[in-house]
Amino acid sequence: MFEDKSQELTPISKLGEFGLIKHLTENFPIINESTETSVGDDAAIINPGNKRVVVSTDVLAEGVHFNLGYVPLKHLGYKAVVVNLSDIAAMNATPTQILVSLAVSNRFPVEALEELYAGIQTACNRYKVDLVGGDTTSSNTGLVMSITAIGLENEENIVKRSTAKPNDLLVVTGDLGGAYMGLQILEREHAVYLANPNMQPEMEGFDYILERQLKPEARTDVKEILKGLEIHPTSMIDISDGLASEILHLSDQSKVGFRLYEEKIPMDNLTISTADELNLNPVMTALSGGEDYELLFTISPEDFEKIRNHPDFTIIGHAVDHSEGNYMVARGSNQLVALTAQGWNAFLSNQDND
Amino acid sequence: MFEDKSQELTPISKLGEFGLIKHLTENFPIINESTETSVGDDAAIINPGNKRVVVSTDVLAEGVHFNLGYVPLKHLGYKAVVVNLSDIAAMNATPTQILVSLAVSNRFPVEALEELYAGIQTACNRYKVDLVGGDTTSSNTGLVMSITAIGLENEENIVKRSTAKPNDLLVVTGDLGGAYMGLQILEREHAVYLANPNMQPEMEGFDYILERQLKPEARTDVKEILKGLEIHPTSMIDISDGLASEILHLSDQSKVGFRLYEEKIPMDNLTISTADELNLNPVMTALSGGEDYELLFTISPEDFEKIRNHPDFTIIGHAVDHSEGNYMVARGSNQLVALTAQGWNAFLSNQDND
Repeated sequence: MFEDKSQELTPISKLGEFGLIKHLTENFPIINESTETSVGDDAAIINPGNKRVVVSTDVLAEGVHFNLGYVPLKHLGYKAVVVNLSDIAAMNATPTQILVSLAVSNRFPVEALEELYAGIQTACNRYKVDLVGGDTTSSNTGLVMSITAIGLENEENIVKRSTAKPNDLLVVTGDLGGAYMGLQILEREHAVYLANPNMQPEMEGFDYILERQLKPEARTDVKEILKGLEIHPTSMIDISDGLASEILHLSDQSKVGFRLYEEKIPMDNLTISTADELNLNPVMTALSGGEDYELLFTISPEDFEKIRNHPDFTIIGHAVDHSEGNYMVARGSNQLVALTAQGWNAFLSNQDND
Repeated sequence: MFEDKSQELTPISKLGEFGLIKHLTENFPIINESTETSVGDDAAIINPGNKRVVVSTDVLAEGVHFNLGYVPLKHLGYKAVVVNLSDIAAMNATPTQILVSLAVSNRFPVEALEELYAGIQTACNRYKVDLVGGDTTSSNTGLVMSITAIGLENEENIVKRSTAKPNDLLVVTGDLGGAYMGLQILEREHAVYLANPNMQPEMEGFDYILERQLKPEARTDVKEILKGLEIHPTSMIDISDGLASEILHLSDQSKVGFRLYEEKIPMDNLTISTADELNLNPVMTALSGGEDYELLFTISPEDFEKIRNHPDFTIIGHAVDHSEGNYMVARGSNQLVALTAQGWNAFLSNQDND
């Protein structure tokens, strides 16, 4: 898991800026018909056909979003792509192209960037998206990655955050809180390693939550599943910052309130047991942990029967009038707990490190 | 030109990540019909009509691409947008949308980012493009900006780097080397200021080259001018890294060679006199200085009469067979000087600072 320092490494300056980009991107094949030209011109050319273009961007900074002490670069490249594709999936659209920008310190050898791009390429293959552009430059310290994802979709399929209605059902894919608990394990074992580099990290038995943190997947499959069920969501968002925060976004944009049922929140047993072990409230990891990259959406109450027993989906609540606010109904009681956006905040979390 | 430290400043953490994005982007109006939804959802939605989408991204890092000791944040925001729009103009396409990602240290107060976004907004207004997305996060040190620019254009108008033919004429817009000389003056005066903060910088008389460095413009006007002249360029690129480097790109992608005539290279008198004053070779500033953001393109020899006396354009050479290589014909002789890519290289230039 930690860097192999035995091989001879190539300084970036040996290739220069153009040579580096060419070297890193030359093995990326073009998969999509919509990609007319890719890397190598001033801009890529995309043929959208008669579709709408959906486009989103995310930036990941070393020391804020990732710690290279325990995140392998290949996983980082994969995850950086997934995070962006998740935004396209959250529009109920199909991702087709990405652009990758890097600002990277000279302390990274070419081999490190090859690892990063191997992860990017694995994600491109897995999700059938083309790398069509990017920029690579030096930075004074650390690594900052910015990825822009593009999707193409027929207008009628696209789902926004702003179109939920009162009485709509609130649905979530997969399970929540795992990525956050995986991070807690990684940080615990990294602290042990820093204190004593001869200690082996104890990662055994935590596979599922470690994978949720290190190699999350974007739910680009959900669009087809819903289509098969003849369900068109009334609003949709992805869970990057925690369930509570995302519910508040849907509320704010759709002008509805929500009731979330604590007992309905889907969580893996390992997430719950690890939270217990670390004296954390499992439900809080789902509400505020973030990085699960599952989809949260609303559907018309008429679609209830189509989805109620589907293994990919859990109905966790419903929309109410905007004036009724956003509350979680506590397990085993009718007590209402106000939902607050205690989601992961890069600026606040970074304060602790200064 | 240097920061006013007298006012009370707001830490970014006071607004948080969502609050900050909302605060910085809420005053951006939507100008283009193609922008269906903008900031506020998982992704923006763009209606390309029947046009192709051209898309490009650039990253700018503090200490590498800019020095906040002498670059005002408003100018930086403006220039960061221009640099990206220039890539779209270099496809002979019309820019329509941008996305802006920032990684920024907590040492920047909200007011500094407001300045930066004021510059971004000025550029959006000037070039009629919409800010449709972005991401803002903290970084451990410094400021890294990544901008993605999108343009929409009819397929038949788009011009690539790869389609020049032997005998085509090589044409450039505006004049070259000014941005680089502006940078030399800024660095000279900044060094004086650092040595003695009571010294006033001597910027008088250098207005044109300072503006070329601090507030460059993208040649989005060229497309319409060429259309009016009934000229369709056979290949095109923008000059971000210096004339020599860009000629080599056209050569490489089009599989042609070039002859560049030294005496034809358009340079402003102030660029030449400042280069002389600083003991620099003026032609080298055009060949290798970079950041001029003029357009370099080829046209069919049949279009010679249409362009020869046009004030916006200078014919500086012509394409030859690929096997004949890329050479500059020296002034006052027929001596051939090989063109080499000594353009500005972020990785090499940064080595000096480490």
